[in-house]
Amino acid sequence: MDLFTVYLEPLERALQAALAPPPDAPELLYGMLHYHLGWADADFRPAWYDAGKRLRPIFLLLSCQAQGGEWRAALPAAVAVELLHNFSLIHDDIEDRDATRRGRATLWAFWGEAQAINAGDALFALAYKALGGLQATTSPVLTLAALERFTQTTLDLTAGQCQDIAFERASAVAEEMYLTMVAGKTAALLALCCELGGLVAAAPEQQVRALREFGHALGMAFQIEDDILGLWGTPKHTGKPVGSDLQRGKKTLPILHGLNHSPALRALLEVEPLDTAAVAEALMLLEAGDSRAYAEAQARHYHQQALAALERACGSGEAQEALLTLAQRLLGRDK
Amino acid sequence: MDLFTVYLEPLERALQAALAPPPDAPELLYGMLHYHLGWADADFRPAWYDAGKRLRPIFLLLSCQAQGGEWRAALPAAVAVELLHNFSLIHDDIEDRDATRRGRATLWAFWGEAQAINAGDALFALAYKALGGLQATTSPVLTLAALERFTQTTLDLTAGQCQDIAFERASAVAEEMYLTMVAGKTAALLALCCELGGLVAAAPEQQVRALREFGHALGMAFQIEDDILGLWGTPKHTGKPVGSDLQRGKKTLPILHGLNHSPALRALLEVEPLDTAAVAEALMLLEAGDSRAYAEAQARHYHQQALAALERACGSGEAQEALLTLAQRLLGRDK
Repeated sequence: MDLFTVYLEPLERALQAALAPPPDAPELLYGMLHYHLGWADADFRPAWYDAGKRLRPIFLLLSCQAQGGEWRAALPAAVAVELLHNFSLIHDDIEDRDATRRGRATLWAFWGEAQAINAGDALFALAYKALGGLQATTSPVLTLAALERFTQTTLDLTAGQCQDIAFERASAVAEEMYLTMVAGKTAALLALCCELGGLVAAAPEQQVRALREFGHALGMAFQIEDDILGLWGTPKHTGKPVGSDLQRGKKTLPILHGLNHSPALRALLEVEPLDTAAVAEALMLLEAGDSRAYAEAQARHYHQQALAALERACGSGEAQEALLTLAQRLLGRDK
Repeated sequence: MDLFTVYLEPLERALQAALAPPPDAPELLYGMLHYHLGWADADFRPAWYDAGKRLRPIFLLLSCQAQGGEWRAALPAAVAVELLHNFSLIHDDIEDRDATRRGRATLWAFWGEAQAINAGDALFALAYKALGGLQATTSPVLTLAALERFTQTTLDLTAGQCQDIAFERASAVAEEMYLTMVAGKTAALLALCCELGGLVAAAPEQQVRALREFGHALGMAFQIEDDILGLWGTPKHTGKPVGSDLQRGKKTLPILHGLNHSPALRALLEVEPLDTAAVAEALMLLEAGDSRAYAEAQARHYHQQALAALERACGSGEAQEALLTLAQRLLGRDK
């Protein structure tokens, strides 16, 4: 049995325990959270929906075990990062006006914005509550260090999200600014996961730092690969039409590079909505102007950085191998 | 110089330090927070606006000093409760569609909902960051206890807010359910303030509990008095027209009591919008049906409970006297 399989059930049970409604709690509030996590339908009857691969807590538990730690001691932190991730999804869905997620209505689309904002806030607090559980499995000082890193990561997330919202309205964004935004919005949480795993294992500071760098670089590479797939992914694998990010007006790394270097692309994208011919021409311009090559080089750069950092983290055993496998599976994806 | 005056400047400086933008932070994010706290105009130029009386942190610092504690050691907690309060205001304004607060545009009205939701999230995280500052002034174990109480209070707040939003759409709400909602939405935070003050002072457990009860009862009495003022307050003092809560369709304690006991009132309030004559008749029905008397009796009940709890807290010195003065000033208000 591989480690994912070993972790998944105890993790899911710990998540459910963290979201068990206290006596007198409004049924609606916890019902919405159970729905979002995939454990209930919209009438709050028990159900089972795909609500994500729980990748972040898995990275955390693997990082802990690879550093010789007891993964069960890291469960409170694993629960906390998954709840933090889901809190940010609930609020992002409102901010981006996304009405569906994984084929189901998002919280705001079903229960209204007011309840959804508030449910996100409750989940954020529940993430802190879960993290406080480290007191029982580690020490007060380690718990406080984990809380500090957790809070800092939330600040990174909100800074990245602020920039992302602002970029939507901006006509031009430098590639470096985009990378800073991705560092906050996507990479910071994965960096936290790997770092917390090392912290709970009481790994040497240098190795904890290497784990953090691994998570960061992996998050960066992951997002840039996503950007590339959003343009050149095979519709059969991605489930999205060719060049879908162009049609949705998104400003991903290759598109920003193109806008900043090709006046022809800039002129082309000014016309909305783009028809199929315009999408095909834009894709051609992005390839001709080396925007695809630029994004691919960036993805490779971060990918290599991630693998080097993982080596420097000096983990061992099957958990270390699983981290390597997972990193390679996440990168060079086709969907 | 009274204690409020002694506390106010160091408190404001500590609040500003907690919201100092880190290097590379998006100017917009911290600018919005400075605007909300009253320190900047909408162009983020330094300015000074009335942004509340900082009552909650003052209660916290007084509770600490009254228990023989060093109020400066409690500043991180005082900052945290004020930031938590303001986080909830930012999100409440979005949830309630309130476009102005204290004569200025609310964050969502000026910068849009997406940025405002995210700014609230950042402020929530900054509250946790501030609270972590207790490590430097107290001990790791006390800091963790404070964090636990803080998180529980946030959960109470979100539970209360969930009920409040749901009540708006409900045709009838029992008075007990309304009181439960107020306990979460209003009283929980004041209870936390007084409790944290006692905790930092390392007061005996029984006295910390009495402080908590004091804050809770005071918050309940405060909200119910607010409900009464929202109907029978003098427009000159409240700045609102007579019976304004009736016209806004709010379901406050006297109105709920009336709806639950007077079919005539129920019929009257079904017609929207209410004209002046209907408001006058509704107010008369509320008095005749003892709904005003019921609310006043509840306010008195909690007021007495608050004063009894304050006595049980066994504080002393000018801080204890200031708590008593403040409690009496908050109750029996005319605005």
